[in-house]
Amino acid sequence: MSRIDDIEGFFNPRSIAILGASRSPAKFGNVFLRSYQLSGFEGNIYPINPNADEINGLKTYPSIKDVPNDVDLAIISTHPREVLKLVKDCIDKGIKHIIIFSAGFGELGKEGKKREDQLLEIIKGRASIIGPNCIGIYVPSTKLSFFPGIPLIEGPVSFVSQSGFICATISRWGAIRGIGFSKVISLGNSVDLTINDFLEYFENDPNTKIISIYIEGVKDGRRFVDLIRRISIKKPIIIWKTGNTPLGKQVISSHTGSIGGSKEIWNSIIKKNKLAQVSSIEEILDYYQIFLNLEQFKNIGQKICLIASQGGLISNTTDIFEENGLKFANLSPSTIDKLKQIIPDYGTNVVPNMPIDISIAAALDMDLYVRVAKVAINDPNVDILIILGSMEITSELTKDLLKLKNKSNKPIILVQPVIPYRLSKFELKLRTNGICVFYTVNNAVKALLALFRFLKHSKQNS
Amino acid sequence: MSRIDDIEGFFNPRSIAILGASRSPAKFGNVFLRSYQLSGFEGNIYPINPNADEINGLKTYPSIKDVPNDVDLAIISTHPREVLKLVKDCIDKGIKHIIIFSAGFGELGKEGKKREDQLLEIIKGRASIIGPNCIGIYVPSTKLSFFPGIPLIEGPVSFVSQSGFICATISRWGAIRGIGFSKVISLGNSVDLTINDFLEYFENDPNTKIISIYIEGVKDGRRFVDLIRRISIKKPIIIWKTGNTPLGKQVISSHTGSIGGSKEIWNSIIKKNKLAQVSSIEEILDYYQIFLNLEQFKNIGQKICLIASQGGLISNTTDIFEENGLKFANLSPSTIDKLKQIIPDYGTNVVPNMPIDISIAAALDMDLYVRVAKVAINDPNVDILIILGSMEITSELTKDLLKLKNKSNKPIILVQPVIPYRLSKFELKLRTNGICVFYTVNNAVKALLALFRFLKHSKQNS
Repeated sequence: MSRIDDIEGFFNPRSIAILGASRSPAKFGNVFLRSYQLSGFEGNIYPINPNADEINGLKTYPSIKDVPNDVDLAIISTHPREVLKLVKDCIDKGIKHIIIFSAGFGELGKEGKKREDQLLEIIKGRASIIGPNCIGIYVPSTKLSFFPGIPLIEGPVSFVSQSGFICATISRWGAIRGIGFSKVISLGNSVDLTINDFLEYFENDPNTKIISIYIEGVKDGRRFVDLIRRISIKKPIIIWKTGNTPLGKQVISSHTGSIGGSKEIWNSIIKKNKLAQVSSIEEILDYYQIFLNLEQFKNIGQKICLIASQGGLISNTTDIFEENGLKFANLSPSTIDKLKQIIPDYGTNVVPNMPIDISIAAALDMDLYVRVAKVAINDPNVDILIILGSMEITSELTKDLLKLKNKSNKPIILVQPVIPYRLSKFELKLRTNGICVFYTVNNAVKALLALFRFLKHSKQNS
Repeated sequence: MSRIDDIEGFFNPRSIAILGASRSPAKFGNVFLRSYQLSGFEGNIYPINPNADEINGLKTYPSIKDVPNDVDLAIISTHPREVLKLVKDCIDKGIKHIIIFSAGFGELGKEGKKREDQLLEIIKGRASIIGPNCIGIYVPSTKLSFFPGIPLIEGPVSFVSQSGFICATISRWGAIRGIGFSKVISLGNSVDLTINDFLEYFENDPNTKIISIYIEGVKDGRRFVDLIRRISIKKPIIIWKTGNTPLGKQVISSHTGSIGGSKEIWNSIIKKNKLAQVSSIEEILDYYQIFLNLEQFKNIGQKICLIASQGGLISNTTDIFEENGLKFANLSPSTIDKLKQIIPDYGTNVVPNMPIDISIAAALDMDLYVRVAKVAINDPNVDILIILGSMEITSELTKDLLKLKNKSNKPIILVQPVIPYRLSKFELKLRTNGICVFYTVNNAVKALLALFRFLKHSKQNS
């Protein structure tokens, strides 16, 4: 039942053929080709098109059967009516891994479902299919990308999704925010390889440390539940489930031909197994960020020291903490004494079990954050430091915070109270060096709670 | 009881004195001074400091009493122990409007509360006070700003807040996103003028069309409820209430000396009067955006046509619509016919009462959004158009969307599925020309629902 070996072959091809390669830059048959040409993929690339001798400078073959060498991976991007014939050709050629971009299958109803059955009939276990109605795979380590222009950054995040466009958006924007991926798979209608197969693959993949899925429905619910139960105690699983409402179910049926299942069942699976549930791309990127730093949070307590300068945000954050059961660190008397000497006498008190309000003085003296952080992080009662800053992220601040984190060995989280005008290189440096950056307290707290839940769940069950 | 005339004087001063003006650029007594010098404020500015003859090139007086001319507005930024004496001097000088920046009053407990009583005793109705423990006012039309460097953009939004730093953040970031303000007031401990006084002022201010408040507690609850009831049917009110939890209440008490009141009472006031409730700076900025375009949504229906290209996001959005009772437009057969000719046959159907999925084809042909939008917006069954785009906002797209909006006279909303790398000038152009831009569907829907609630509430009660 395990398809781990079948899947592995997709990620390390020595050669790729694009069936339906096109001369027109405005067609996907050209985009996919360019993607592999530009990504630095080191194997052979064979464009297949009966009406061209050469595309993008590469020798082009009329049929896959005409390629003189072995082909490890075939990508089919043609009109759906040609797909069955081309898959047959691939089988004859001995190709074991096929990605079908072409849509026009189960998502169109009965007629399309029949075509899917025919596909399975043709491959009869001799090859594996990803798709149809998908955009393929993104594997930075072997230079496989969806589209040209998506940065290829390696990392421990894997994502399998029934929506293709979301894969492209997440890998592109993840990379821009410094998040590295191991494998991203657009499954489409998953006629052969399914979300379950990839879950099992991720479970056993040493390069996947964070699992994430966009899911509309599953075909083998029992296996899914078994897998989730088993994996959720080993690796964090982030889940984006749509099609939860009657109209939503209609949409997913025309999108990938999925059947959604009841909202109650899904919620119970998610809750029971402490999956991290998201419902937007922003949220999934935020959750990646926190889980990428999982190791920092293992074997430490969960008392948080909050340093902030905007009274209103402090009061707001305190509400959010209380509503979610998060606790402020009980600062020791000696820490409080030291802090009182540093923080100007403008506004508020420094007291145990409460946030540290460094007051509006921070508007004129940005270094105040760092001076206070240096004292607070050394308090043995402080496990995690959150800085709710109104400051610009400068080179100086970046250096100071990273030094502080490395010296103290305690997690530091930076919350900006508003989306910045632009993502600065300093913010990126923090993000890629173990300091999470969020734009609202709510998101930071949500992500942190998901992390805490996973840690507890995994500890209790292992 | 009305303090409207007292308040008006703060916003149009012909001259300002800064008591506690400082030579050191790192002190607020210098920052406030610079702020007025740099903002283009046209009246006289008098620095007051017994130990200086000149600060920042301006003649400096030892005492407010030494200023040879009339002074309309005094700002006090000194140690709290000097404040009472300086206020007395201001009264003697005949100054009617005083802003007290200095903290060290009610937020420090009994001793501070006593000092607040003494303040009231001194002014005895002869002057009005904003503060203490506040950062003053921001009035772009008369060039009054909190700090140097906050852009002065006039507009119909007013904000009164018990947190000062939040005022500065909101006016700065609002301006960056193209949101113009009428008046922003940092109230601090509101020892004299209160949130109620400003609510009444806003009610009658023709330049305030959107009212927003950050509130920790009120002193005269009955008057507050009466005002809210009356105003909420005339102008949209956005409210950010903190101090809702036991620990949160402790924080607000040390922040501005407020008493919070029960969460249940607040929720019932908010719900009954259809106030738009927010809990982050991002949310308040999003709500400003939608309410700034209130006129577009008056006297039209609320059937929404959604155009999108990412199947997963469409399914997600459909769930969000259903969960919130929003309706998709029932596209007419002729619209559907036309759309079928435009949208490539890659993926999904175009059907009435559902979102329009233009498929991944949009990744290669960005103009597809516009071609589809042009057809859809002319359908009489479509009231509002939402484009859920994965596209970059180009000059071309900006022009096309603005043309479409102006020609059709229907609201267009653009939702980007992720926070962009930077806020582009084209995005800003859309935002400032009546096309709202959001970064998640959830935020767009929340803002739209708040707008719909206000429209209904105001219609039913007037």
